[in-house]
Amino acid sequence: MDNYIITIGRQFGSGGRAVGQKLAEDLGIPFYDKELISLAAKDSGMNPEVFENVDEKAANSLLYSLSMGLYSFGSGFSAMGDLPVNDKLYLLQHKVIKELADKGSCVIVGRCADYVLRDRDDCVNIFIYAEMEYRKQEAVKKHGIDEARAEHIINKTDKSRSNYYSFYSGKKWGMAENYDLCINSSKLSEDKIVELIKNYINIR
Amino acid sequence: MDNYIITIGRQFGSGGRAVGQKLAEDLGIPFYDKELISLAAKDSGMNPEVFENVDEKAANSLLYSLSMGLYSFGSGFSAMGDLPVNDKLYLLQHKVIKELADKGSCVIVGRCADYVLRDRDDCVNIFIYAEMEYRKQEAVKKHGIDEARAEHIINKTDKSRSNYYSFYSGKKWGMAENYDLCINSSKLSEDKIVELIKNYINIR
Repeated sequence: MDNYIITIGRQFGSGGRAVGQKLAEDLGIPFYDKELISLAAKDSGMNPEVFENVDEKAANSLLYSLSMGLYSFGSGFSAMGDLPVNDKLYLLQHKVIKELADKGSCVIVGRCADYVLRDRDDCVNIFIYAEMEYRKQEAVKKHGIDEARAEHIINKTDKSRSNYYSFYSGKKWGMAENYDLCINSSKLSEDKIVELIKNYINIR
Repeated sequence: MDNYIITIGRQFGSGGRAVGQKLAEDLGIPFYDKELISLAAKDSGMNPEVFENVDEKAANSLLYSLSMGLYSFGSGFSAMGDLPVNDKLYLLQHKVIKELADKGSCVIVGRCADYVLRDRDDCVNIFIYAEMEYRKQEAVKKHGIDEARAEHIINKTDKSRSNYYSFYSGKKWGMAENYDLCINSSKLSEDKIVELIKNYINIR
């Protein structure tokens, strides 16, 4: 593959973000994770802080609103005034993700990017996950989370990501069939996962 | 890895069996799929034909019987007389799979082998799946299934495998987190999937 958009879904504490970052560095292509919030904010003229608390969290009204024909992507988001901020962020990130993919190769973490870009042939959709024990250690080491609360926070964060993914894509988060390649990061070092993904891109 | 038991879960029509067979050939190690039926039959002195219709199909009574302490693996299967044939086959295949793994490297397709061997560190658990359109073509080409009925048969077979897996392992079939590596076979040729798995084993 010459041009490729690599999307990475990831369980909390699996190191999926770090894998994506290393991969983007190695391949010399842009990397987007939290950056998608500021790009969405810039695009809308809103304060990014407003979006931070609702990032990758589903609201309940968007599908209803879309089904009622109240909003459309073609309308330039002019009718977004009454939408909950979660849905505003989803729509803005949706637009930003599509624009970034049009520009060329990149790595995009989370935010249903695999679903948003489902009509493109140049996407490599990856899911990174790990065993709970590994994720707990990662949560303590990398996110500074208290060991006693690590499992609770992991489950809560994953529940939120899962709801977000299901709500906007209609598919079950973490099912292998939504992705091209799924890798258990408890079994390989970060560098080796990056190597495996590069090998995958080379042979595809 | 020097010694490794490769287990392959697979959607019907994904080509997972062919991948396993090619992989075993390339690595020069034994391959077990339907062979597990005859080994189980031989072990029990039963007619293999009795088992063929119930292979990878769950019955409803085993967990109840086990929970009631009516049967145990240590009892040499002497108390299996009243069990449904599905459960007999599961117990016999469980025993055969453990014995094969003890003998050395091999490839085992289906039959919850990832779950049966969950306490071993030398297992590489793989799941192979594909998009429906690809699987329909494979079902017609490789299994001689009528095109009009292909999707129905694919869904029915997968439903049966899914029930079997959930029933005996207590986990959801096809969830990425049950495996070490999951590969969408619609995106890579059989040879390339084999290459990717060999690369995975090499770097692990």
